[in-house]
Amino acid sequence: MSRSLQLGPDGRLVHLLSTEGLPAETLRHILDTADQFVSVNEREVKKVPLLRGRSLFNVFFENSTRTRTTFEIAAKRLSADVVNLNIGASSTAKGESLLDTVWNLQAMDADMFVVRHKEAGAPHLVARHVKPGVHVINAGDGRHAHPTQGLLDVYTIRHYKKDFSRLVVAIVGDILHSRVARSQIHALKTLGVPEVRVIGPRTLLPADVERLGVRVFHDMAAGLRGCDVVMTLRLQSERMSGPLLPSAGEFNKAYGLTPEKLAQASPDAIVMHPGPMNRGVEIDSSVADGGQSVIMPQVTFGIAVRMAVMAILAGNA
Amino acid sequence: MSRSLQLGPDGRLVHLLSTEGLPAETLRHILDTADQFVSVNEREVKKVPLLRGRSLFNVFFENSTRTRTTFEIAAKRLSADVVNLNIGASSTAKGESLLDTVWNLQAMDADMFVVRHKEAGAPHLVARHVKPGVHVINAGDGRHAHPTQGLLDVYTIRHYKKDFSRLVVAIVGDILHSRVARSQIHALKTLGVPEVRVIGPRTLLPADVERLGVRVFHDMAAGLRGCDVVMTLRLQSERMSGPLLPSAGEFNKAYGLTPEKLAQASPDAIVMHPGPMNRGVEIDSSVADGGQSVIMPQVTFGIAVRMAVMAILAGNA
Amino acid sequence: MSRSLQLGPDGRLVHLLSTEGLPAETLRHILDTADQFVSVNEREVKKVPLLRGRSLFNVFFENSTRTRTTFEIAAKRLSADVVNLNIGASSTAKGESLLDTVWNLQAMDADMFVVRHKEAGAPHLVARHVKPGVHVINAGDGRHAHPTQGLLDVYTIRHYKKDFSRLVVAIVGDILHSRVARSQIHALKTLGVPEVRVIGPRTLLPADVERLGVRVFHDMAAGLRGCDVVMTLRLQSERMSGPLLPSAGEFNKAYGLTPEKLAQASPDAIVMHPGPMNRGVEIDSSVADGGQSVIMPQVTFGIAVRMAVMAILAGNA
Repeated sequence: MSRSLQLGPDGRLVHLLSTEGLPAETLRHILDTADQFVSVNEREVKKVPLLRGRSLFNVFFENSTRTRTTFEIAAKRLSADVVNLNIGASSTAKGESLLDTVWNLQAMDADMFVVRHKEAGAPHLVARHVKPGVHVINAGDGRHAHPTQGLLDVYTIRHYKKDFSRLVVAIVGDILHSRVARSQIHALKTLGVPEVRVIGPRTLLPADVERLGVRVFHDMAAGLRGCDVVMTLRLQSERMSGPLLPSAGEFNKAYGLTPEKLAQASPDAIVMHPGPMNRGVEIDSSVADGGQSVIMPQVTFGIAVRMAVMAILAGNA
Repeated sequence: MSRSLQLGPDGRLVHLLSTEGLPAETLRHILDTADQFVSVNEREVKKVPLLRGRSLFNVFFENSTRTRTTFEIAAKRLSADVVNLNIGASSTAKGESLLDTVWNLQAMDADMFVVRHKEAGAPHLVARHVKPGVHVINAGDGRHAHPTQGLLDVYTIRHYKKDFSRLVVAIVGDILHSRVARSQIHALKTLGVPEVRVIGPRTLLPADVERLGVRVFHDMAAGLRGCDVVMTLRLQSERMSGPLLPSAGEFNKAYGLTPEKLAQASPDAIVMHPGPMNRGVEIDSSVADGGQSVIMPQVTFGIAVRMAVMAILAGNA
Repeated sequence: MSRSLQLGPDGRLVHLLSTEGLPAETLRHILDTADQFVSVNEREVKKVPLLRGRSLFNVFFENSTRTRTTFEIAAKRLSADVVNLNIGASSTAKGESLLDTVWNLQAMDADMFVVRHKEAGAPHLVARHVKPGVHVINAGDGRHAHPTQGLLDVYTIRHYKKDFSRLVVAIVGDILHSRVARSQIHALKTLGVPEVRVIGPRTLLPADVERLGVRVFHDMAAGLRGCDVVMTLRLQSERMSGPLLPSAGEFNKAYGLTPEKLAQASPDAIVMHPGPMNRGVEIDSSVADGGQSVIMPQVTFGIAVRMAVMAILAGNA
């Protein structure tokens, strides 16, 4: 279902809602397109006219300054007109539904919506109801998906490791509540990563996680052994004192990425994190700021990947 | 007074504060100019350089994401530099007056102010105190006026009905608290609509409403009979449980626009609503989304009308 | 230390953190550059392409719509892409540090940060940790500095008085808590103003204020006598009922700038205020709006000065 909603009859990307269901060629087209935008962003004049005169709406039903900023700067560098809407205190408070809000914006001749919502599936609902020619990007929906994060992660891996076909990738931490992990796993599997591992306590892993095609580890040392890529996840603060975990300190002892634990991985393993980091909880500062960390390049590539998605959706790449 | 404040000695529009007092030729000039912008907004590159390098400030003393967005997107499509100010928690909280706030922004070489305020007359006060060459647009002041809404409504009617001179137009609901209704009535009368009706319970009609030149109906069926245009108003949620109404359900039974009630109107009558809608209160979903509804085109035309007003004020249309 | 952080090895301005430590030639270069932008802002098309394609982030850890607006409009008139971040409810609430927030934005290929923070020294911390080629402007840090305000003040004085070398300048009010006063004093002294006076009650003057090279007055009439420039400071509302002052009314009686008190100054003295004003507290309306007031020109020049600082930092002026 996600596939038919995301891809047109000719196989072109129409909406980006999830990395699940996207064929490898589509993923590679996005990554190849992003390559060009990385160099645009290194220039003094970081601007191309690909989306000039298009209207992009950042519709955030769940507040996130950080994520909104990445889409805003990506759209502006494509010369789009960007309007930010922080919904919650506004129209929905006036009793208007999600679809009425979107239809109203669509009637302003919107070209593209970037939608973030605390409910899983909200961007899909929007995508099913917009007019042909209007495109939807999921910027995070509940625990479901965060596809541009998944894409920037595989972009980063490809940049440093070149070839997906021999990699061992470990994802560490709260898989259960993470839309990021889900988007990562689908993208990695589709691109042919032979071994994706998830590492975490039973309480933070989905019951049927093996069905995603991953190997499950509860022991950090065993899980990291020989890995080429270590992707740590953010531990939401509400979990730290919740019923699923003894404490943030206990979590750090067992699953926090320290130099000692990282030593189990391949010597040239890279370390990734979607941010914002809880230093001293899921990752130690000496690792986050260390020589194997590619956390800042992830952010840089994230802008290029979002520009690529927007340009492709607009039919200009 | 409004006339002399809105029109210069040569009859040109200087500020848009109210549809009241604007001559028919001014209204028609705005509508004719909007025609051109409707086609701009249908293009891929929805942008013209008419306000390039001009500084437009959206100064919202009363929050409204929806209305702010319409002015923001209109200004950006004219290539203006737009700055949004949500005042309330900022300068006025620091004890600064409305005029000091505006004078301060004016000193930044502002070209245009879009002002929304909960007090009636606030935009007029601003207009009386800005320098020559600075223009003010009222984006809603208390119960007084919302002229761009009134203009987009008459634009929509002209688009679908062509000729104002034989129309029967009904406005339904809470006329008493509606700045929209006031702006609609003035514009409709000026443009020569022979019969404007208002339909609502006594408690939601102004005592002297006939003085506006309208026919008053308390019975919905009688009021809608033979109408060409049905304009439903939003029922503010604070009215629904207030002393003026028994309940939202009772209101819906008597004045909510259902297919049955709409059948009283002319078969080719159009249905309008300023949004956001309370579905199931003042309008049923089957009508709002039905074949006679032009509610989404209203939004589309609203952008073009706001672009027209801005371009005319700037002296470029 | 401030000097070495603000100026490169070749003496070029790298960051603007404080007027303290900036040589006179640097200050004059900023003022001379601002001259050109004053005329740009008087044009219909208030736009030059000096920062086209550059990404400027307004990172406000302390909310200020007014100050944020001045930087936003300055950057837009230089054709930069501007992103506003109101931090406090966002990333820092998620436990992210100031530096992590800035590093994250820097990784988006930021060119310039405008930083406001309630802690003194925060913009210096940022400046010490950004990459070469990234520039930081202090938009107010605690009680420490507000250098663009200090610069626009000396710009205004130069505009009206031409020559600094014979001036007597008085700064009146709450010097103790004012980052504005500090920035003014450093700039005035560096540019060769022979006599800078501070006037205020003992409780609102720093203990060692003479070390800044100023003359101290507790009596308003004596302090204003023969002054060429009177700079009144805003009295923060929390002081008005605080332990340092009897009351706002008492303050007004002793130090509020009235026409009578102003008569002690030179007949052609100019009156300045950084805004927003507490009319009837530190300044009477008849003075604020009177013939000697240059408070609105200060705002106008403030945009040009901020444009000048941005253009110089970007290496284009």
